[in-house]
Amino acid sequence: MVGGGEGAFIGEIHRLAALMDGQIELVCGAFSSDPERGRRSGEALTIPPERCYDSYQTMMRTEAGLAEDKRMDFVVIVTPNHLHFPVAMEAIKHGFHVLSDKPATLNVPEVLALRECLEQSSILYGLTHTYTGYPMIKEARARVQAGELGTIRKVQVEYPQGWLAAQEESAGNKQAQWRLDPKQAGISGCMADIGVHAFNLVEYVTGLEAEALCADLNSFVPGRLLDDDGAVIIKFKGGAKGVLTASQIAIGEENNLRLRVYGDAASLDWCHEDPNSLMIKANKAPTLHWRTGSAGVSEMAQLNTRTPAGHPEGYLEAFANIYKNFAGSIQAQREQRPTTCAEQDVPGIEEAVRGMVFIESVVASSNSQEKWYVIPEIQQEKS
Amino acid sequence: MVGGGEGAFIGEIHRLAALMDGQIELVCGAFSSDPERGRRSGEALTIPPERCYDSYQTMMRTEAGLAEDKRMDFVVIVTPNHLHFPVAMEAIKHGFHVLSDKPATLNVPEVLALRECLEQSSILYGLTHTYTGYPMIKEARARVQAGELGTIRKVQVEYPQGWLAAQEESAGNKQAQWRLDPKQAGISGCMADIGVHAFNLVEYVTGLEAEALCADLNSFVPGRLLDDDGAVIIKFKGGAKGVLTASQIAIGEENNLRLRVYGDAASLDWCHEDPNSLMIKANKAPTLHWRTGSAGVSEMAQLNTRTPAGHPEGYLEAFANIYKNFAGSIQAQREQRPTTCAEQDVPGIEEAVRGMVFIESVVASSNSQEKWYVIPEIQQEKS
Amino acid sequence: MVGGGEGAFIGEIHRLAALMDGQIELVCGAFSSDPERGRRSGEALTIPPERCYDSYQTMMRTEAGLAEDKRMDFVVIVTPNHLHFPVAMEAIKHGFHVLSDKPATLNVPEVLALRECLEQSSILYGLTHTYTGYPMIKEARARVQAGELGTIRKVQVEYPQGWLAAQEESAGNKQAQWRLDPKQAGISGCMADIGVHAFNLVEYVTGLEAEALCADLNSFVPGRLLDDDGAVIIKFKGGAKGVLTASQIAIGEENNLRLRVYGDAASLDWCHEDPNSLMIKANKAPTLHWRTGSAGVSEMAQLNTRTPAGHPEGYLEAFANIYKNFAGSIQAQREQRPTTCAEQDVPGIEEAVRGMVFIESVVASSNSQEKWYVIPEIQQEKS
Amino acid sequence: MVGGGEGAFIGEIHRLAALMDGQIELVCGAFSSDPERGRRSGEALTIPPERCYDSYQTMMRTEAGLAEDKRMDFVVIVTPNHLHFPVAMEAIKHGFHVLSDKPATLNVPEVLALRECLEQSSILYGLTHTYTGYPMIKEARARVQAGELGTIRKVQVEYPQGWLAAQEESAGNKQAQWRLDPKQAGISGCMADIGVHAFNLVEYVTGLEAEALCADLNSFVPGRLLDDDGAVIIKFKGGAKGVLTASQIAIGEENNLRLRVYGDAASLDWCHEDPNSLMIKANKAPTLHWRTGSAGVSEMAQLNTRTPAGHPEGYLEAFANIYKNFAGSIQAQREQRPTTCAEQDVPGIEEAVRGMVFIESVVASSNSQEKWYVIPEIQQEKS
Repeated sequence: MVGGGEGAFIGEIHRLAALMDGQIELVCGAFSSDPERGRRSGEALTIPPERCYDSYQTMMRTEAGLAEDKRMDFVVIVTPNHLHFPVAMEAIKHGFHVLSDKPATLNVPEVLALRECLEQSSILYGLTHTYTGYPMIKEARARVQAGELGTIRKVQVEYPQGWLAAQEESAGNKQAQWRLDPKQAGISGCMADIGVHAFNLVEYVTGLEAEALCADLNSFVPGRLLDDDGAVIIKFKGGAKGVLTASQIAIGEENNLRLRVYGDAASLDWCHEDPNSLMIKANKAPTLHWRTGSAGVSEMAQLNTRTPAGHPEGYLEAFANIYKNFAGSIQAQREQRPTTCAEQDVPGIEEAVRGMVFIESVVASSNSQEKWYVIPEIQQEKS
Repeated sequence: MVGGGEGAFIGEIHRLAALMDGQIELVCGAFSSDPERGRRSGEALTIPPERCYDSYQTMMRTEAGLAEDKRMDFVVIVTPNHLHFPVAMEAIKHGFHVLSDKPATLNVPEVLALRECLEQSSILYGLTHTYTGYPMIKEARARVQAGELGTIRKVQVEYPQGWLAAQEESAGNKQAQWRLDPKQAGISGCMADIGVHAFNLVEYVTGLEAEALCADLNSFVPGRLLDDDGAVIIKFKGGAKGVLTASQIAIGEENNLRLRVYGDAASLDWCHEDPNSLMIKANKAPTLHWRTGSAGVSEMAQLNTRTPAGHPEGYLEAFANIYKNFAGSIQAQREQRPTTCAEQDVPGIEEAVRGMVFIESVVASSNSQEKWYVIPEIQQEKS
Repeated sequence: MVGGGEGAFIGEIHRLAALMDGQIELVCGAFSSDPERGRRSGEALTIPPERCYDSYQTMMRTEAGLAEDKRMDFVVIVTPNHLHFPVAMEAIKHGFHVLSDKPATLNVPEVLALRECLEQSSILYGLTHTYTGYPMIKEARARVQAGELGTIRKVQVEYPQGWLAAQEESAGNKQAQWRLDPKQAGISGCMADIGVHAFNLVEYVTGLEAEALCADLNSFVPGRLLDDDGAVIIKFKGGAKGVLTASQIAIGEENNLRLRVYGDAASLDWCHEDPNSLMIKANKAPTLHWRTGSAGVSEMAQLNTRTPAGHPEGYLEAFANIYKNFAGSIQAQREQRPTTCAEQDVPGIEEAVRGMVFIESVVASSNSQEKWYVIPEIQQEKS
Repeated sequence: MVGGGEGAFIGEIHRLAALMDGQIELVCGAFSSDPERGRRSGEALTIPPERCYDSYQTMMRTEAGLAEDKRMDFVVIVTPNHLHFPVAMEAIKHGFHVLSDKPATLNVPEVLALRECLEQSSILYGLTHTYTGYPMIKEARARVQAGELGTIRKVQVEYPQGWLAAQEESAGNKQAQWRLDPKQAGISGCMADIGVHAFNLVEYVTGLEAEALCADLNSFVPGRLLDDDGAVIIKFKGGAKGVLTASQIAIGEENNLRLRVYGDAASLDWCHEDPNSLMIKANKAPTLHWRTGSAGVSEMAQLNTRTPAGHPEGYLEAFANIYKNFAGSIQAQREQRPTTCAEQDVPGIEEAVRGMVFIESVVASSNSQEKWYVIPEIQQEKS
């Protein structure tokens, strides 16, 4: 693990998620850019001192030198954004698979370089778009794929948070600090932090591809250099439209990502406050309320469910699904067997590219006086 | 009553709402442009045949000729949009107060002409923006006015309906037919029908004034001449932003208008599916769930509530509040007394102007390649 | 109208409900046992002074002496409980139909006397079990009747209110005073006031008949002579069981009557906080969420709905359905035509008898040390 | 681990919960009474073959013979009910701490014997009343303890499940088979399986102690020897009353445990479908909606929370809290330090005794014709 030392939020989440299924062990780390803090963090996690590294470079080099059955299997990147790319590149160089936090890099050139590098290797790359790990999101995708909604016309996705409604970044909140610092976060705050999750969720569930957008980003709290709120109207290939809103100044909101998709036959509604429910609505019919773990849900939802219906699964389980499926794909490679459908279902480098293109397009559009900004076409690699 | 004959939807709603408090009686009508149908409708409503008029012109003329204590007190206009203006003008000419369905007219010039005409008379004019009649909407407005939310930063309003997801207009649905016919509906379908309600609700609750917007309208169902869906990003004077979405192809949705307002101190959330609740949210505090009729709500909410807490009020009661308050303002004029705060609280000609300007601006923006369309400033009249 | 003067709660509700559909007019009243207050109340309602009577006896006598097209059509009884019976008897004596608040009388002998009297006349009698007026309750009943739930095994009904959690009766709350005064309320407080609604709802929706019960009543607030809370386990004929709870000290609760019925094929769930929804649940299937006004609901639900789906109906509309259907049954008698299915669907004297037997049985059971109290069989009259 | 082999449900849940925090490792097991199946199960869990034991007796004996730093630290019992007692006794005999599924034993004599045995040792004993592990249940308890509800008057707890609505036990459902077999389950089905959870939750949150009860148990599905549904009216010491319902034939219900507690100052409402919310209600005040992880919640809730507000925690996290706190108490004993407040907060032998007394009392009451059954007083041991 790179990053995730004392005071970090997401590192602990990663560890809980990774350990959940008993398949993954945390064996080493470079938990902080401050070696002393890194050591303390490692100690608290009962990592042997000799595997608490001062830097990720040392970690990669040293671990690569260990015997195959001793060294780590893959690297998890849970640093601020600006390190995602160099750490991933270093890992690839030393032959380690990579599971990275989003956004994948600081900008599009980086992510394209990363992709090129991955293509020339057999390294596996995963991106933690956690919300795609929820069983009912899998269910939503399966129902769209099965045609239950008909042709999709309209998508509405929203991601409101309130925790940055005041100037937390100057009040000692580390999470706020780096997220609003262009050097560490990149060209966007809110959109790179949560808007990109919403965008990924839309493309994941609907299979649609955005082709143009009209964005309006805001920095409501005085002194901020990056956006803390924004709205995006999206044109998808094929004629569907979307509205994406993301905010970190939506005071009083926790983390209520919500996705609604309207087809010409039916619609779906999912929200993070009640993640084990999926509503399917149609005209002239009662709303169908599907639930995690209940009979009749798709295979993919079942494969990502641990408890019987009525025993709520939460954020950690969704996150653990990303880990489990990614670990499975590593296992498959090692065993030289084909991956299962679940193992294939992990956000990867293509999603990483889409995300970076989205972030840059949103910022460009917001800075433009023209209504529509055409999202640059970036050839998808053959997988 | 003008309009609202057989097969109409809103006429019956108006009658139920008007009668609710026992202060208003339906005494005459020109219920249809087809005299025979008009007569049948009037008969069904037990209106004396001599007061079932063949045309609104005849009605105005004839009623104006009756003794003061016999003739009607005010005219209700429940026709398709294109008749709102001429009927209102005719009523004013004959000295009758007017309560009109929205949108007030077909376009801005008409509504300005209407306003000018009203200014030169003592005629009272009300506009049925029904949703402003809900007690918890009054409560929302009162809390914003009291400063509970602080400075408003962001507004999110949505109005999804699904009933026009298929081509109802060619399937004999009268409601769909005129709403999608430019001659009867004007230059907009969805935005003139429901988007304008959402817009009014925002300005009513927040007191903000929109100054520019960026709109994207869609006609998803083939063959439609008017929009059946749209999204609007709004700039308000003073720096707040808003996102307004309205759709009539949101399949499976009933009529779920929802308003969220985020200030720098707190936020509010109201939705039409649960209209007797108002949520007030803040960071570092539990969400407060206020309810119609409960202790602690504002005077204005109380004045518009009929039943004790826990006895749900609905759409008809909200509508009846518009009627009751408008009738009260007529009564006040007649009694030469000042209006009460409740009686003043009826959407009127200024809201009518704002609504028409909104509709035209949205359409203009949607047709433009520029991002921002500045809403024309129209001087507000001194009231 | 008898009762419902100044300071009364339910009188105003009755008037709103009665007037809603424009078929019923309030023409006279004995609004208070205090003649002066009665006159003031009548004046406020714009009842001609000569028809504001000092006593219900005078009202009956005088109205009976008017010409048939002048005199009132039926009497509404909205007094405290102890007057329900004598006023109803007086009305019958003078040939007026009766619509009475529940409970029908103070005790079983009275209600049997009332029934006998009704049998020997052609007087129509209705009882305002308001909750049976909700469209989705009609829908629930229709679905049970259609066999959608299979054989019913278990019923859970609850009626929590919190308004009597403190000693309101000695704090000047008139509603509390008479409800907790045995002379005016009878032998039960909470059970006679709201428990009986819950009981009626169960028998109405399920068609089951209670045959024995085990009750435990409480008076939590010191000094109370009547119950303010209670629980009842019920045995129904045929083997189904039920649990009924009612409370007026459930602090913080408004008026959230809720009914759940479990069959061997499916179950239903309805609650008063969201009265326009009806949930149908089964194993191995998604929950179906039916809504007032939507396609696919039963004829009986449709006949009791005024607004299209998504325009919430509330308590007043449910109440108005009782009035509309009762007025219709009077109309049918007058026109010597058969009643429609909607007109037959009004709680009447049999429900009145069941309710009084329930109240007495609950009190007897609560006072007994034996577990089961067998509900006395009272022959139902041929209708 | 004893039990939890192939085909078991709760074994896998235990393992996920135990592993979550990275403090606990599964090192050995006697996973099945069928040695072959036990071995297969152990293998699937990557337990070394030599530590997959044929019987729990062998496991205890063998593990006790290992060096202290090699042998297991505690035993988890996830067998059908009839083995809870003998396995626990065997573990104690060999000096292993015990974490057991509920109900603790088959009957009261067994649980008293178990308690006596524990008293004479320093063995730690925990009971997996999972629902007490939820942060918002901790919060509920903290608020009751702080006096926020005032004096408690009424408790309503319900635990509806639908999975046994049909005769699953003869359809090859192993979970159903043993739960409805008196030899394996004891004298009660539904009440011993889930009713006892509801009972424990009430006593845990309120601090009340039940002193008498009136129960009515049902076996709705033909051929069942044990109850599949029941209702219990409870008298608590001090005058509060309760209603407890539990059902496994509540068709269409998943696992929706819900607790409402009404004091004379306020009430609380928690349900398992939305376990991260806690509602606090009072008269004349808005309902307060508290959430897991939000500012202002009690220390005990915070200590049992892993993710920030808005990242839903679920059943596994609640379960993991039991494990984490129990493991902490073992750690404390080993380190000869006092336990923290969190470590003390694990259901133990006193809850085990209360549960068994409850189950036997409910069955005795249900078989009795008298209304009230006095729960036998069993002296609580000094802790």
